Amino acid sequence: MIIDLEKVPTETGSNYPDEFKSMVAGRIRQRLGNFAGLKNFGVNLVKLEPGSSSALRHWHSHQDEFIYVLEGELTLITDVGAEVLKPGMAAGFPAGEANGHHLVNRTSTIAVYLEVGDRTPNDEATFPDDDLITKASPDGKSRIFAHKDGTLY
Amino acid sequence: MIIDLEKVPTETGSNYPDEFKSMVAGRIRQRLGNFAGLKNFGVNLVKLEPGSSSALRHWHSHQDEFIYVLEGELTLITDVGAEVLKPGMAAGFPAGEANGHHLVNRTSTIAVYLEVGDRTPNDEATFPDDDLITKASPDGKSRIFAHKDGTLY
Repeated sequence: MIIDLEKVPTETGSNYPDEFKSMVAGRIRQRLGNFAGLKNFGVNLVKLEPGSSSALRHWHSHQDEFIYVLEGELTLITDVGAEVLKPGMAAGFPAGEANGHHLVNRTSTIAVYLEVGDRTPNDEATFPDDDLITKASPDGKSRIFAHKDGTLY
Repeated sequence: MIIDLEKVPTETGSNYPDEFKSMVAGRIRQRLGNFAGLKNFGVNLVKLEPGSSSALRHWHSHQDEFIYVLEGELTLITDVGAEVLKPGMAAGFPAGEANGHHLVNRTSTIAVYLEVGDRTPNDEATFPDDDLITKASPDGKSRIFAHKDGTLY
């Protein structure tokens, strides 16, 4: 089915613990894949406002990730440092590769990109810059956020 | 990792039986996800020359598919008929939905799109317009092509 972008809900906000929510306050997502009924992977069209981040810097144990820049300019932060991504550029983050990554909009105009991620179970995310770990909840339907000492948020 | 598009090999050709190869002769793919080391899903950047098709019209039993148009204009053929897709438009094809689909470039200029598909095992593809069925080979590494009466090509 063709996905009518005007009918796909826009989502802001985050399920991060409160102290981290401001990092992604300017992230506006449309879940195109979910809208079309896809279940094996998600494809989101994301608009990132100036100053905002795609996520906290993180890497996944079991899930691959991919992004493709459509408009504007994004800075990719990894262990390598900061690298600028322009429209037509892409990046991939294989599951289990322990190199935390996120995108930051360091410009004064909005940036737009596609992000793809799968739903492989038993995934955990590691956040090298923050006192945070996540893992899937026992029912697999949500994520549990904890401090690195295991204390729940 | 950032994917250097100039280093990603371009692939033409097809593993279809000979009589169907001409349908996709003008399809040029770069396997961006594979290049980055992704395993759970594939993301290909595809250039489709005038007159060529993305694939034979088909649907998958177990694998989701998604496309996003970047340049040019593509005609999506499904049971609904022909619908034109322009840059910034997207379509999704959920696993198991028995509505064969493919993209055809009916213009005189090249069209470019991203295609995403996962690697869920035991997938079969059904081709409503052609005397063809496929299923994964016993080792899961390739596809077997057969006539609809089961005779192998």
